Amino acid sequence: MKISILTLFPEMFDILNYSIMGRAQKNSLVSIDVHNIRDFSMDKHKKVDDYPYGGGAGMVMCAQPIVDCLEYVKKINKGKVIFLGPRGKTFDQEIAKSLCCEKELIFLCGHYEGIDERVYNYIDQEISLGDFVLTGGEMACIPLVDSICRLIPGVLSKNESFQEESFYNGLLEYPQYTRPEVFRGEKVPEVLLSGHHDNIRKWRRKQSLIITKVKRPDMFKRITLSKEDKKLLKDD
Amino acid sequence: MKISILTLFPEMFDILNYSIMGRAQKNSLVSIDVHNIRDFSMDKHKKVDDYPYGGGAGMVMCAQPIVDCLEYVKKINKGKVIFLGPRGKTFDQEIAKSLCCEKELIFLCGHYEGIDERVYNYIDQEISLGDFVLTGGEMACIPLVDSICRLIPGVLSKNESFQEESFYNGLLEYPQYTRPEVFRGEKVPEVLLSGHHDNIRKWRRKQSLIITKVKRPDMFKRITLSKEDKKLLKDD
Repeated sequence: MKISILTLFPEMFDILNYSIMGRAQKNSLVSIDVHNIRDFSMDKHKKVDDYPYGGGAGMVMCAQPIVDCLEYVKKINKGKVIFLGPRGKTFDQEIAKSLCCEKELIFLCGHYEGIDERVYNYIDQEISLGDFVLTGGEMACIPLVDSICRLIPGVLSKNESFQEESFYNGLLEYPQYTRPEVFRGEKVPEVLLSGHHDNIRKWRRKQSLIITKVKRPDMFKRITLSKEDKKLLKDD
Repeated sequence: MKISILTLFPEMFDILNYSIMGRAQKNSLVSIDVHNIRDFSMDKHKKVDDYPYGGGAGMVMCAQPIVDCLEYVKKINKGKVIFLGPRGKTFDQEIAKSLCCEKELIFLCGHYEGIDERVYNYIDQEISLGDFVLTGGEMACIPLVDSICRLIPGVLSKNESFQEESFYNGLLEYPQYTRPEVFRGEKVPEVLLSGHHDNIRKWRRKQSLIITKVKRPDMFKRITLSKEDKKLLKDD
């Protein structure tokens, strides 16, 4: 996947050079190019923002450098233009799954009080990270790119399979334990040491169901319980 | 505010040295110390993860280095321990507002398939960034810290006031425009150039209401409309 990012803070994206995202770039599974919107300012002081018409606090990002930067990037990236902003649909695993199939994507990060409304004419999709305010779109773009790219085949190794994770099957994950068997007096549940695969599977499924029911009743309501699930929830 | 972060990837937090968060640290409004969990591993190869009991894909972070690191950090930071994980309440502006009053906070970032369940005994609160999977808790911790710290008095300058932003008053923000008056043939709405403050205020309120109604009907339902709001929505 080819990802182009438009931002006023290109250095912030160094974070994608570490861990799994760093490896994905080294293995050429993902290529990321970052463009500084400020480089496209026609202003002699390279200004990129100005006071809002009609007054009010804060500065607004001007349309010209953003749109010129977008037009430059569109020559090398034919993907859709995604703006990180509060009016967008809230990002979730479904959106991540739909975007991980794209070959190219362009992300536009805003800053300050917002962008000049006329930039919206050049945006294909707006996505919000959640119902909270950030200092800039960069802080939303980074987890988005991470969440999308880890679904690209080959990015996670076999050992990092995502099929049993929280949200993958609509449930929160079951509790995990690793060595030692006893940590500060607390033991690993007996069943996990039993080697009895079916009992382990059932125990984990039951834990997943219980944790989801308690912690995320909204998620639990959306699950279709199997016959076995109902039995597991009754047994105790 | 004093923030301590426990992670396997301390370099990722360099991102907080830029922009508004960088300035907040320089002005001593926020101090951030980052601790590498790996430094606390008792294993001779500094291993921090192991296979899960009961089998399955992925590696699980061991309890020992995390808990030892936490105990070390607790000597210098008396704040509550927040774990970034999927079982937590979904982060929003309300949580940001409640946490921005704390004097000290400790954030624990997990990685791999998860943490040994026994670490939960040492955690005060779990927070989730949203319903999607990330490669690590770092990607959630960064926007959280950003969103919380910008609410600390003095972090934003007067010019960056947060009182008119999206989510602050339960509405999405109205459209913003800045110079030039005409950009590629598209004009700034007449009212914003009128200098008539009350008309500008009403236009903005109306736009906020309409945008929220269209883009976020769930948010719109939670607003109590004033008499004026109802009139603004009727007029057209």
